[in-house]
Amino acid sequence: MLNTLKKDIDKELAEFLRSSSIMMSIKRSSPVLYKGIKDFIRRPGKRIRPILVVIGYLGYTKRKKPDLRGLIRSSLSMELLHDFLLIHDDIIDNSETRRGKPSLHRLFNTKYGAPPADKLGSDLGLIAGDIVFAAAIKELLSIKENPVHINKAVSILADIAAQTGLGEYLDVINDSKGIDAITEQDILSMYTLKTAKYTFEGPLLIGSSLAGANNIETGKISKLGSFLGQAFQLQDDLLDIFLSSKDTGKPAFKDLDESKRTLLIRETYARSNNTSRKRMQSIFNKKIRLKKTS
Amino acid sequence: MLNTLKKDIDKELAEFLRSSSIMMSIKRSSPVLYKGIKDFIRRPGKRIRPILVVIGYLGYTKRKKPDLRGLIRSSLSMELLHDFLLIHDDIIDNSETRRGKPSLHRLFNTKYGAPPADKLGSDLGLIAGDIVFAAAIKELLSIKENPVHINKAVSILADIAAQTGLGEYLDVINDSKGIDAITEQDILSMYTLKTAKYTFEGPLLIGSSLAGANNIETGKISKLGSFLGQAFQLQDDLLDIFLSSKDTGKPAFKDLDESKRTLLIRETYARSNNTSRKRMQSIFNKKIRLKKTS
Repeated sequence: MLNTLKKDIDKELAEFLRSSSIMMSIKRSSPVLYKGIKDFIRRPGKRIRPILVVIGYLGYTKRKKPDLRGLIRSSLSMELLHDFLLIHDDIIDNSETRRGKPSLHRLFNTKYGAPPADKLGSDLGLIAGDIVFAAAIKELLSIKENPVHINKAVSILADIAAQTGLGEYLDVINDSKGIDAITEQDILSMYTLKTAKYTFEGPLLIGSSLAGANNIETGKISKLGSFLGQAFQLQDDLLDIFLSSKDTGKPAFKDLDESKRTLLIRETYARSNNTSRKRMQSIFNKKIRLKKTS
Repeated sequence: MLNTLKKDIDKELAEFLRSSSIMMSIKRSSPVLYKGIKDFIRRPGKRIRPILVVIGYLGYTKRKKPDLRGLIRSSLSMELLHDFLLIHDDIIDNSETRRGKPSLHRLFNTKYGAPPADKLGSDLGLIAGDIVFAAAIKELLSIKENPVHINKAVSILADIAAQTGLGEYLDVINDSKGIDAITEQDILSMYTLKTAKYTFEGPLLIGSSLAGANNIETGKISKLGSFLGQAFQLQDDLLDIFLSSKDTGKPAFKDLDESKRTLLIRETYARSNNTSRKRMQSIFNKKIRLKKTS
C-alpha cells in the first residue's frame, strides 16, 4: 500500500511541476529557474512527509468516499515544504550536493557559468526556496474538504514552518558554540524543532486536521510525532557515521565534515579521555565564529 | 481616516509581536532572534499594504458590522510579507541599512560579535525571513469571515509571494546583464512582478477576496493594482536620484550605487552620446557575473 501511495505522490508531483499556475508562470519567465526547481523536486526521495499526511487523513476522516486525488495533491505541500527547507539549508551549510546531485544553489552557478561558490547561486537559491515555500502553501488548498478544516491545516503548516526555522536558527547558533558548551538538552530541543516537527508531527497533524480530528486526538498525534521525529534524527546521525554515501545518497561523514553538533558527537566527546577531547575541540572549535550566543 | 487606520495597524503590529504564538515561541528560544525581528518590524513605515487590504475589504464587504479588529490583524499579513521580502532582498543586495537602521543580517552580525559582512548574518537573516513569511500566512487567518473567502485569500497570498520571488529572480539576472542588453520590456515586467503585485494588486485583491468579491470585480482590481504598482516603482526610482536620504529614509543613490537597471537609468543610457554610454557601460558592467542569461 505504501508503495502504491508513493507512486501516486510522485505522479502528482510531476503533475504539479507540469501544470500548476506557479510553475507555469516560472517556466514562461525563466527556463533556468523552472528546470532548476523541477530537477530538484523530482529527485528520488522517501516522500515520507506526504505519505504521513495521507495516512493522518485516512485515519481520521469520516467520509466514505474521500477526495483521494485532492488529498494527494494537498499532501504535496509537505514535500514542497521539505524541498524549500533543504534548498535554504544547503545554502546555510555550504553543501555542494543533495540527494546525490548538486545542491540547487550550486546548480544555478553551473547553469549561469558562475564559479561554484559564487554568491549568485546562493541569491538565486534563496529566492527559489521562497517560491517553493509559497507553492507549498498553495498546494495545501487543493483538497475538496470542509474549508474550516483547510484553514486549520494552513495554520498548522505556518506554525511548522516557523518552528522548523527556529530549529534551524538554533542549529546555526549551536554549531558556532564550542563543543564543550553544548548540552544534551540544547541538541534534543533543536532536533525537536528542526526535524521532528516537520517530518512526523506536522504531516500527521495536517492530515488529521484536514479530516477534522478534534483537539484531544491531535494532542495525542503531536506527542507521537514528536518522539518519532527525535528517533528519526538520531537514526539519521547514526547513518551519517556508519553507512556509506552509496547507501544514504548523502556524502559520508557529512555531519563530521561540517562539524555538526549531533548528539552522537556530543556523547563521544563526553566519554572521551582528555587527549581525545582536546583533539576534538581543536577540530570542532574551528567553526566557532561567535563571541556571544543566545 | 488613513491616519487613524495607520495607527490601528501599528498598534496591532505591536500586539502581534507581543502575543502571537510564533513570536512567543521565538522569544523563549532565542532573545536575539526575537529582538532582531521585533526591531525590524517596528521600524516606521507607510503601512501602505495593510491599509490597502483594509480598504479593499471595506469596499466590497456586505456586512454591516465587519470584524474590524480581525480585519486589521489579517491585514498585517501583507506588512509581514513585505518585511520578509525586504529581509531577503537586503541579503541579496548586500544592503547595509534598511529604513534608516542596519539591515537585519547586519544586525545579527553585530549582536553575535561577528564581522559586519560575515556569512553568519546572512544565514540567520535568511532563516528570520522564512519565519516572518510563515507568520504572514498565519496572521491572514485572523479575521472572522467565511472560511471559503479566507482560503481564497491564502491562495492569493501564496501566488503573490511566488510572483514577487520570480520578479526578484529576474531582477538579479537583469542586474547581471550588460546595461545595453536590457530592454524596456524586461524592466517593466520585472517591476510588475517584483513590486506591483505585492504592493497594490495583492493587498487590494486579498482585502476584496476576504470580503467575497466576485471574479469580475477582482479582475478589475488586478488591472488597477498593476498600473498603480508600476507608477509607484517609477516614482521610487525618481526619489532615489532626486531626493536626499533624509527625505526617503534610504541612502541616496542606492540604485546607482548597486548598479540597478532601473527604467530611469536605461532611458538615460538610451539618450546619451557615445562617450557617456561608454562611461556608463564601464561602471555598470562591472557587476556582470554571468556568462549565460535566461
